[in-house]
Amino acid sequence: MQSIVEAVVSKIKPQDMTLSTAQRISQKVRERAEQMGVKAVVAISNRAAHPVLVESMDDAYIASYDIAVQKAFTVVSLKMSTAALKPLASPGGSLYGIQFTNGGKIVIFGGGEPLKNGLGEIIGGIGVSGGSEEQDTALAAYGKEIFEKGKYL
Amino acid sequence: MQSIVEAVVSKIKPQDMTLSTAQRISQKVRERAEQMGVKAVVAISNRAAHPVLVESMDDAYIASYDIAVQKAFTVVSLKMSTAALKPLASPGGSLYGIQFTNGGKIVIFGGGEPLKNGLGEIIGGIGVSGGSEEQDTALAAYGKEIFEKGKYL
Amino acid sequence: MQSIVEAVVSKIKPQDMTLSTAQRISQKVRERAEQMGVKAVVAISNRAAHPVLVESMDDAYIASYDIAVQKAFTVVSLKMSTAALKPLASPGGSLYGIQFTNGGKIVIFGGGEPLKNGLGEIIGGIGVSGGSEEQDTALAAYGKEIFEKGKYL
Amino acid sequence: MQSIVEAVVSKIKPQDMTLSTAQRISQKVRERAEQMGVKAVVAISNRAAHPVLVESMDDAYIASYDIAVQKAFTVVSLKMSTAALKPLASPGGSLYGIQFTNGGKIVIFGGGEPLKNGLGEIIGGIGVSGGSEEQDTALAAYGKEIFEKGKYL
Repeated sequence: MQSIVEAVVSKIKPQDMTLSTAQRISQKVRERAEQMGVKAVVAISNRAAHPVLVESMDDAYIASYDIAVQKAFTVVSLKMSTAALKPLASPGGSLYGIQFTNGGKIVIFGGGEPLKNGLGEIIGGIGVSGGSEEQDTALAAYGKEIFEKGKYL
Repeated sequence: MQSIVEAVVSKIKPQDMTLSTAQRISQKVRERAEQMGVKAVVAISNRAAHPVLVESMDDAYIASYDIAVQKAFTVVSLKMSTAALKPLASPGGSLYGIQFTNGGKIVIFGGGEPLKNGLGEIIGGIGVSGGSEEQDTALAAYGKEIFEKGKYL
Repeated sequence: MQSIVEAVVSKIKPQDMTLSTAQRISQKVRERAEQMGVKAVVAISNRAAHPVLVESMDDAYIASYDIAVQKAFTVVSLKMSTAALKPLASPGGSLYGIQFTNGGKIVIFGGGEPLKNGLGEIIGGIGVSGGSEEQDTALAAYGKEIFEKGKYL
Repeated sequence: MQSIVEAVVSKIKPQDMTLSTAQRISQKVRERAEQMGVKAVVAISNRAAHPVLVESMDDAYIASYDIAVQKAFTVVSLKMSTAALKPLASPGGSLYGIQFTNGGKIVIFGGGEPLKNGLGEIIGGIGVSGGSEEQDTALAAYGKEIFEKGKYL
């Protein structure tokens, strides 16, 4: 009985982002950024949208710190990637104006992805800033893949 | 040996904006603004994007103070001119929405230029506000030229 | 008749802080700071409490920028020195709590002085930050003396 | 000639905090916190007072994130530990009120230490939050010792 409980619990974990997991994801994302020639800030939030880890690669844009942290907030607080939010928040979009709510913490361009556990629950988010929008989007997607395929283990 | 050390140090300098250099650049820019009939605020930041000098010409727009200071922040923190940022941050651009991040400190219209030393490193920035966008852009570009060609010496 | 009008007008001037006057006051204050071994930020505001000039001596405290600017705001907006405000704003003082109003722009320790013209009208303010409270207070008082005795001319 | 250049460059380094160094300091501080039973947030800033790394141990106080980041800002921007600032910023102290300047980013209780290089220059700062003031102060002091004695290498 005990082993079954443990097996179930282990399967539905992780329930929330841990610092250890965040570090492993961020390391992989930074390595990829390095290969791409991007000096990135990587931020990882937990399921409450609070930051767990922020790492600024040497000589990253000063502005990238806030942007990465806010992307990691945006994706958990709105349960969607910042790339998906972009058309909705653009002029003519159904959520145009959301970028002015929440004290300026909503980012509406690519580079943020929610992170889901095996049950499809969002248990954290990743925000990347430092390259072009395409690069940041690719790096955040890579972080998501790393996490969701368990490649960070 | 000492002379070599000095040679090396002189080669890698200036590493950061000084008040003295900022004053000389600003004076030239204000003289040009005067000629153009523009009452400008001129702000100069260091390589950390912190302001070193802000000068408000008599009867400049009250709003220009914040705009100039934030242009000088923007160009260092994003390593590009505010004119170059403009299309990226406009609706449809890849960074549309960046003007709402960083606590509203990102300015996305002309009048800000990063300032590079002889090694091509950004060691400060200039922000000018007070005229039309074209005038501010021309004045910031003039400040950049003054600095990068050593004309402030 | 005309010459009398001009004489009167010239006597009651300056009616507002100018950049040129601010620069001269700031230069004198910075020279004094240099002698004292203080790396100061000097801010000078106009009669509307808006900043006219901010100068950050090399290697001044990063925090001093905001503090100097806010001292220059405080002294004009409350028409008293920050040293005079201090006991009023301390626990038990009649204005205790004023440091929480005005969006955090009220500074309640020494280093700020209002600047009066020959008619006793406040036409600007000076804020100095970078040394001990005593040093900042002395430097602001020196700036006030420079201005009010016309020594900046 | 090349070796001389490198010798000079190596002599003047480290000039600024790197992510790699910040990670090593933070790891040591977290290990110590673990031993003390403290769930801490550790923040490390560079010489410009900008954050380089923030790590939140699992189940740390939510409030500790901002506190740690702001401690790391405070110690660089004022060039002193937050413990040293405390008596100055308390009622009756010469800087009482400084906690309300700088947009609320000045922290006036223990847990923050500036980090100096071999030349005695402040090239970063550490902020720790999560335990009692004594614990945070001890952890920040430990991080300072780790860095300044080169134990992070």
